[in-house]
Formats: sequence, C-alpha cells, structure tokens
Amino acid sequence: MRLCVLGAGAVGSAVVELAAEHGHVVTAFADSDSAVVDADGIDADAVLSKKREDGVVGDADPESVFDADYDVLVEATPTTLGDAEPGFSHVERALYDVLVEATPTTLGDAEPGFSHVERALADDRHVVLANKGPVAERYADVRALEADSEGTVRFGATVGGALPILSTIEDVGPSRVSAVYGVLNGTANFVLSRMAAEGLDYEHVLAEAQDLGVAEADPTFDVDGTDTALKGVIVANVLAEGETEFTLDDAAVEGIQELSGGMLDLAQEDGQTIRLIVEVADGSVRVGPRLVSANGAVAPSGTENAVQIEADYCGRLGITGRGAGGPETASAVLTDVERLAD
Amino acid sequence: MRLCVLGAGAVGSAVVELAAEHGHVVTAFADSDSAVVDADGIDADAVLSKKREDGVVGDADPESVFDADYDVLVEATPTTLGDAEPGFSHVERALYDVLVEATPTTLGDAEPGFSHVERALADDRHVVLANKGPVAERYADVRALEADSEGTVRFGATVGGALPILSTIEDVGPSRVSAVYGVLNGTANFVLSRMAAEGLDYEHVLAEAQDLGVAEADPTFDVDGTDTALKGVIVANVLAEGETEFTLDDAAVEGIQELSGGMLDLAQEDGQTIRLIVEVADGSVRVGPRLVSANGAVAPSGTENAVQIEADYCGRLGITGRGAGGPETASAVLTDVERLAD
Repeated sequence: MRLCVLGAGAVGSAVVELAAEHGHVVTAFADSDSAVVDADGIDADAVLSKKREDGVVGDADPESVFDADYDVLVEATPTTLGDAEPGFSHVERALYDVLVEATPTTLGDAEPGFSHVERALADDRHVVLANKGPVAERYADVRALEADSEGTVRFGATVGGALPILSTIEDVGPSRVSAVYGVLNGTANFVLSRMAAEGLDYEHVLAEAQDLGVAEADPTFDVDGTDTALKGVIVANVLAEGETEFTLDDAAVEGIQELSGGMLDLAQEDGQTIRLIVEVADGSVRVGPRLVSANGAVAPSGTENAVQIEADYCGRLGITGRGAGGPETASAVLTDVERLAD
Repeated sequence: MRLCVLGAGAVGSAVVELAAEHGHVVTAFADSDSAVVDADGIDADAVLSKKREDGVVGDADPESVFDADYDVLVEATPTTLGDAEPGFSHVERALYDVLVEATPTTLGDAEPGFSHVERALADDRHVVLANKGPVAERYADVRALEADSEGTVRFGATVGGALPILSTIEDVGPSRVSAVYGVLNGTANFVLSRMAAEGLDYEHVLAEAQDLGVAEADPTFDVDGTDTALKGVIVANVLAEGETEFTLDDAAVEGIQELSGGMLDLAQEDGQTIRLIVEVADGSVRVGPRLVSANGAVAPSGTENAVQIEADYCGRLGITGRGAGGPETASAVLTDVERLAD
C-alpha cells in the first residue's frame, strides 16, 4: 500500500520508520508546516533526520500531500494536549511541539484531522486514524462521509495503541458486547501505582512522573480523565453501531487530581487499590477513580493499560499491555493498513 | 455464508445454535453416525433436540454432507479424549459421547478431521477448524492443500477458544512475534489453583474437579500437558510461517500429575505459585509446571486461560479469559467465518 502520513509526532514518525518493514511505501508525509512527496517512496531516514534537525519534514506545502499518489491516509496529527503518551524520548517530545498549537482546534470540531479525513474519503482513499478526534467528536460525520466513498476508515490505534481492543470488539461483533471497562491511560495509572506503592501524595508523584518523562509538562488531559474519556467515547460509538452518537459531552468524567495518598492507603487495607477506570456499558461512558481489587484484572502497574470486554458467549476477555508510545501505536496503525490490504 | 458443520459435540452444536444470529445458514450438519442436509437451512432447534433424544442429528449418511451446498466447512470433530473442556453441562457432555470413539484415530494422523479438510478444499470451499488435529499434526499438508484450493483455512478457535490469540499474532505479523507463553488449559489450571488455595494434594483436587464437571472422567490429556502442547504446536506452526513444521513430537511436555501440595506451599512462601505453562519461543515448544508470580500475568485462577504475546514494537500483550467451552469456542468459529465473509 502507498501511504500518506499526516503528523510528524511520535506516531507518524514511527509509521514512516516502520512502513517499509511491513511492505508499504510512504509517498507523502506532512507536519503542520511542511511536506515531502515522492511517488517512488520518501527516504525515511533522511526525512526524519531533517525533521529532527530543521524542524520540518521537507520543502513542500502541507496541502500538496493530497495530490500525491497514495492508497491510505494515515491521520496521526494530535488530538489533545494530553495525547503525548508516556515513553516519549526527549527527541520524540521535541517533535511533538506542534501539538500544543493544534490543541484548541481539535476538541469539539476535531480539526484539522476531520478535514483531512473528509478530503481523503472524497478522493476515494482509505483512512487510518491515530488521531482520536474525528471518531470521538464527529463519529456520525465520519461514517456518513465513508458511506459515500470507496474508501474505508479504520481506527484501531486510537484506543489502547497496539492492544487488540477494537479489533476484538469487531471480531466478536459490537452487538454482542455488553460492557468494556478498565484502564486506558498510562500516565494516570503510573501516578496511582506510585502513590499506592510509596504512600506519596498526588503532587509529589506527578512531579516525579514529569521528571521521568512519563507525564507531560501539562498532563491535564491525562489526569483529568479527558484522554480516557475520548477512548471510551470511541468504544461507545463502535458499540452503538450508528444508533446513537457519542461525543465527549456525553461522558461523565472525573479525574484523579483530588486523590490523597491516605485514600490509597485505606483502600490497601482491604486488598484494594484505586485506578482511573473507564466504563462503557448500557449506552453510557463514565470515567473516574474507582476502587478495584489490588491484584485484579484492571489494576495494572506502571504505565500499562488493562481492559475487560464482556461479550455474549465469550464471557470476559481481558487485554493488557502498553497502550501508548510511538512504535506501539504505529504498529496498530500498520495492522489497520494490513486489514485494508486484505 | 452457508455452513457445513462436522461434529455434534459442544462446539459443533453451539455453532449450529448461534449461526443464524450471526447471519449465517447451516445447510449440513453431521456427527460420526448421521447427518441432516437442507439447502434452505436446517431447523437448529429440531435437530439439536433430535440429537439429545435419539443420539443422531438426522437420517442421512454422514458422507452426504459433502454434496450439500455450502461455503464453509466447520470442522469440529474431536481431537483428543481430553478435549471436552470445563464448563460442559451434563447435556453437553452427553452430546460428547462420540468423542471417546473418535479419539484413537486423531492423534498422529489427525483423522478423520484431516480428510474432511482435504475434501472441502478439493471442492474449493473454506474450512474453519475447531478441531486441533489437522493444524497440530499435519500443518504442512493442510497448507499445501490450501495452496491448491480457492478455499482458505482458518483455525482461531483451536488456541484458547474465544481469546484473540491467533488473530492478534496474525494482525501483528508472525515474524514480529518473539514469544508466546502462558496457560492454555483450564482443567489443569483449576487443579493447580485449588491445590494452592486449599493446600490439598493433586489426587484429592482432581477428584473434586471431576465431581464438579471441570475435569473429564479421563483427564489424561489435560493434566499430562498434551492438550496444552497441541495448542503450543499450532502457535509454533503459525510463527514459523512454513519454514519449519511442528508436531506433538517436537514439543517437550511434562504434566502436573507429580506435583504435591507441599511444592505449592513452598512456592507460596515466596509470593509465587505453580502453573502449567506453555512456552513457544526460538523455534521450540515446551510445556510443564513452572514457578510464576502468584499475582502475575500468567497465574489466572480457576479455569481461566492467560497468555502473553511478545512482539517487536508492541511489547508484551496479555490476553485472558475462558479458553474453552461450547459457546465460547463456537463464537471463535463464527469470528473466523466472518473474516472469510469479508
């Protein structure tokens, strides 16, 4: 497949780096200010070096990528300020500078991601999303555009990165899934794990997480539940199969900022702990700190994610792993590309 | 899709029962002694009642199903004596009587399952396996027949029932998976969980498991590691992508029959426990009791399964759930049918 990759953050860059190994060719690559287009395939190493050194991927206009020859648009521009997931190296974080500027426009109208999707579908191309915005905030619009296009939209990478959450829901059949719940934000989980293990307070652990690069300088969307809620909303949209549309406004969201170390200590006396849990069930999305069994299925440690899918006939399926990070998410993007190629 | 279902045990019967809900039609259904064929779709309730009451599914010759109109052959005849998984109701176990007779022929040459596959592929039909035999014991033969056919063989249900293990390996790409390990037999896991929790000996717990219907009257293949090894061999065949062929002879297999309650007590003093673990890595398949962290990713409780997949870029993906049972495995079969329909 010939890929057009939008977004030169950790995910987009990793897609460019790994595409060849998966047998695909990147014919166009853009960040918010620049682009490089080559019908024979761009030179990944050279382009990623240029991005690191000069801050741009090439000399062309970002708009020019839509005129390139490509089969699949990989939409990896940032959704939210909080979307720079744990595990980013300093280089990767430096690449992510454009994220801050893009933020105010992405929640609510999901721009510029939505317009990218619209344009690719109008040209009958496929779209693979790493950006949560379009399917969290404008799901019905995306599906309507897809219905009028020869192209297909896939977005497995938007929920849990490489964890096979959406693909499992798809395989089981959304109508047979009664509930999806668990931990979908590694930064919040790291903070809560450390608070429980060390008996420290929120502010203290958060500062440590920022030092370690596990939390961003502004971790608002990770700790206030917004990032988790966006993922829950996407799951809810998939489960509703078009009968209802969910956006962030439909989610009841509470963060972990008010939790004290003492509350975690109390929980531990009963063999429990506290995690930031999303629950998607019965047509609702709820996010908040919840008491869970300390060694249970939805109490992962560190930056891990852990989700349970309850489905008719299958019972409870549990899926755990690193839910974020450039290579992990890029791997999920390339799995979606592969499914489109089949 | 029009399905031809071979095998009227728990899995085959559940496929017949659930097919309509998934939008498919069963046009032929056979056990080892009888068959029913109807181009408009068999009456599932009537046929399953007949099987329960008269011990046969219909009045036709089992061979007649191959002349029926169908798109996908669902091969759910039994592989091994130990394959009647936990959770079978008494009714389901009654349906499984034919299993014992079929047993001696299936290990080694994978018959009669292999011939069923051969015949369907020769007719350019698809095949979905619930029966492990053909892909554990004659993988290369199955792939060679598939290469000469318009039909495709899928076998997601053979490893962990509804757990998305093989589909995740397929999505990530077998060449990027470096190791697969964990618990794939619910009966053995139940026995070890109970021994650890109650401090009882193997013989005692096994008798209890048999009373509960969690272990078969003859649980040999569950407790001696054979069932787990067959699943590991299938995974190894998938990872090898045709470069090497694995059969049960290539697996190093040790069971749990020799374990004492005292050994589990000793393990617990260190926060560990013992589980029957399969490890597929570096071109080898090993099955045996292993010390694992008591609250770790591969120490599920009761009859649960728990597997870790280590893959480049994705890290460690964990998958847990009920790895056996009629409806669970039927659900996996129907997922494979769905993927063929796409």
